[in-house]
Amino acid sequence: MFVVGVVDYTTSRLSAPRSVCRLRYRGARFVWPRRRPECQSASTSLGWRPSATLTKMQVVATPAVRNPTPQFDFRSDGYLYCEGVRVKDVQEALGPEFSPFYLYSQDRIEANVQAYTEALVGLDAIVGYAVKANNNVMIMKLVRELGCGAVLVSGNELRLAQLAGFDMRRTVFNGNGKTPHEIALAVQAECLINVDSEFDIENILAAARRERRRARVLLRINPDIDPQVHPYVSTGLATSKFGIRTDHLDWFLDRIKQNEELVELVGVHSHLGSTIKKVELFHDNVVTMLRIIDDICAQGFRSIRFLNIGGGLGIDYERNGERIPTPQELIDAIRPRLAGRGLTLIIEPGRSLVGNAGILVNTVIGVKRNGDKRFVVVDGSMAELIRPALYGAYQFIALVEPGQQDKELAEYDIVGPVCESSDFLGKGRRLPEPAPGMGLVVMDSGAYCMSMASNYNMKLLPAEIMVHGDSWRVIRQRQTFTDLLSGYRELMPIPGLES
Amino acid sequence: MFVVGVVDYTTSRLSAPRSVCRLRYRGARFVWPRRRPECQSASTSLGWRPSATLTKMQVVATPAVRNPTPQFDFRSDGYLYCEGVRVKDVQEALGPEFSPFYLYSQDRIEANVQAYTEALVGLDAIVGYAVKANNNVMIMKLVRELGCGAVLVSGNELRLAQLAGFDMRRTVFNGNGKTPHEIALAVQAECLINVDSEFDIENILAAARRERRRARVLLRINPDIDPQVHPYVSTGLATSKFGIRTDHLDWFLDRIKQNEELVELVGVHSHLGSTIKKVELFHDNVVTMLRIIDDICAQGFRSIRFLNIGGGLGIDYERNGERIPTPQELIDAIRPRLAGRGLTLIIEPGRSLVGNAGILVNTVIGVKRNGDKRFVVVDGSMAELIRPALYGAYQFIALVEPGQQDKELAEYDIVGPVCESSDFLGKGRRLPEPAPGMGLVVMDSGAYCMSMASNYNMKLLPAEIMVHGDSWRVIRQRQTFTDLLSGYRELMPIPGLES
Repeated sequence: MFVVGVVDYTTSRLSAPRSVCRLRYRGARFVWPRRRPECQSASTSLGWRPSATLTKMQVVATPAVRNPTPQFDFRSDGYLYCEGVRVKDVQEALGPEFSPFYLYSQDRIEANVQAYTEALVGLDAIVGYAVKANNNVMIMKLVRELGCGAVLVSGNELRLAQLAGFDMRRTVFNGNGKTPHEIALAVQAECLINVDSEFDIENILAAARRERRRARVLLRINPDIDPQVHPYVSTGLATSKFGIRTDHLDWFLDRIKQNEELVELVGVHSHLGSTIKKVELFHDNVVTMLRIIDDICAQGFRSIRFLNIGGGLGIDYERNGERIPTPQELIDAIRPRLAGRGLTLIIEPGRSLVGNAGILVNTVIGVKRNGDKRFVVVDGSMAELIRPALYGAYQFIALVEPGQQDKELAEYDIVGPVCESSDFLGKGRRLPEPAPGMGLVVMDSGAYCMSMASNYNMKLLPAEIMVHGDSWRVIRQRQTFTDLLSGYRELMPIPGLES
Repeated sequence: MFVVGVVDYTTSRLSAPRSVCRLRYRGARFVWPRRRPECQSASTSLGWRPSATLTKMQVVATPAVRNPTPQFDFRSDGYLYCEGVRVKDVQEALGPEFSPFYLYSQDRIEANVQAYTEALVGLDAIVGYAVKANNNVMIMKLVRELGCGAVLVSGNELRLAQLAGFDMRRTVFNGNGKTPHEIALAVQAECLINVDSEFDIENILAAARRERRRARVLLRINPDIDPQVHPYVSTGLATSKFGIRTDHLDWFLDRIKQNEELVELVGVHSHLGSTIKKVELFHDNVVTMLRIIDDICAQGFRSIRFLNIGGGLGIDYERNGERIPTPQELIDAIRPRLAGRGLTLIIEPGRSLVGNAGILVNTVIGVKRNGDKRFVVVDGSMAELIRPALYGAYQFIALVEPGQQDKELAEYDIVGPVCESSDFLGKGRRLPEPAPGMGLVVMDSGAYCMSMASNYNMKLLPAEIMVHGDSWRVIRQRQTFTDLLSGYRELMPIPGLES
């Protein structure tokens, strides 16, 4: 429950963020009409009428849905807290020159990992953190300390995983376009390697021969299951670039049999896609994969130990009460199928480990209007966070501090300073009108935000902050102008850089 | 005219890239059916029949449309040349570890600038290079030496323009979300500053007061003209985040009048959008802007000297014969309107200066098939070049070297190694099947490609190469793994970096 604003009965205006749907007034609970609050109906329901002396009512509210991330909490003082830290305090401590920045909750990451480890109790399993979701090395170290393995999609992610101290034998090297050099790194490091295609197995064989090391491989199967998500994050359909079609499986088995001194087939892998909200899809996939394992074993392969079901569990970006399956529900759905199989389950969560553990904190530059259209202009942009522009993704947006008194609630597009119209963070969001300098957060920005950031318009990669309890620390410094010039190091004198 | 492949009459297969539409055989000219060449019809038309001893015919062809960039030329040896340099030679010199890379033609950039300067003969004008299109400092220096000013959209672009030696009084500082700090830099540097909104003028006034310097400003007008382009690159509509609506102009004029010691109103600016293919739009815009200038002058402003018509001229990405207006046509369309006005015209080209002057050179990792679907997997990706994923943009794709003999022509999706389905460079392109290691270029990648690149999947920003005549040089080095770790400099020991 928190103060969301003021109902002004002379103007019939209320300021409250979009998520606010349940109001309390003198103990009475009132469900506020979603999206388009009309204060008339609220006052009627509450049995309260304005008088000559009392024309305004302070509105307190509880969100319509349980806050999916209690570590990010709007408290009764109107401020957003991450664990014990007031986000506004971090914004002020860093100052406008270090805005925007990413801020993560260590508790939330720990809770997310724990949700998987608890769900997996009694199963032999590896929780392989999908590093591409967020490659901050401090976050990688944290999830490694919490017991995770790592899922890697490039040679540089592999090198970073080594720096972060992962047991490389518990990492998976994935990808449809591994270069020969990257495969050599993976063979040297003894990663599990997913075979994606004919040329991929040939490159793995060549690398194993060159490195004089037997590679442990899984076959990435394209199961042709529709994950019912955005086409850009759907990966398990027949028309996808990923994986091996089952009708071509025998070719791969023959190729491996012919080269058993170079490769050991230790498992199968599939990954349906991302932002998945139905556990039945995982169940169906496991059934398919177990059938494939049976086929493989029937052909004399004795070394199948791993069933890698990929990642892809969605998170509650929308915060509109939709049921998102928990890791427990996912594992419960597949657990009966695994009984007596003697397999090690590999699961590859990324988004569901870090997605809701991070936010992007922006500073409001100003508010403008073009005709009926209103914009909140902030210093964050598609350069720091491209998901809305690239996928049309929705992420919840709120102010980190109380709205201005007596300012009307209105619908805004939240846009950045980048010079093109694709630069938006959210569209049509109801917010109290913010003042310049106020903090505005894009929630659920822990995954596929910082890792996809660019320097478009020469914007600097933002700093990353980790909150733990009542304290916070920088876990990646903001990029500098000098960093942007590093590619000219040996070509011209760079101010601030001796070379 | 160049060799495009071989017609094999035993298999009825031809290898030829998509653009090849006109064939020559023994002097006869034959228009090849576009998109779906059927060699049966070709052989019939040419009056040529296979015999027992002669079952193959070498096919030479001229492209259906005049090559829009003669500096990038497929020669009769089957190789792509940039000016006098064989692109394959650069690829081999750099080696697989430095693939993919961007490669630019200095001649092409010079010709593109010249097209504007020739079109503008007799007019007082500034060609302001839109740095956001490509911020390589060597390219910035080149266009500066060719006489261009610069159009800047961030404080870092401003600092880079200073490094590149631009006369800052001939630069324009643009943007809907300039921070107070950036405005201070622009005021200090004496840039022309475009006023975008109410809060923007307030910030400019505050900066001028603080810096004790009078700022020269232009009003960015939102003319509400539909540029008929992708909504993401359309910027001049009423619903866009950019500019000032004319119905609110008087407020701005009053604000400026009240503060004439701090700001001097020197002009008006508008920018319709990007990739525009109709000069009438520019003409209509100039008419609108001149009317606004008249209105402003009628209110006693005597200092209007600049008419800034923005940029936005499209380039021939599609190469399918569509007429793209030239700078000459653009200027000819508006020139009569400017006569006797005594205005300095500012034009802000970005794409049309550098877009067709650059290519992304990738290395083929392999070819795979999922059912009917075929993929060429290359080492370049949405990390290096996001336009196809972000805008659904089409860029012409070809091999830099002759296709393999006896390989069929087929339709491929050209995809990168990044682990998501949005990672493609082109879809459904007819190509001869390439062998691993071959070079594959994405043409017309000089603008909004490198400047939008990210480190997604920890991919390194590619090197940039400038070709001039028969020689080439590195104009930006490839990013290094150590560069990716620069944000941890003071937080942990970085291999390869003392700190």
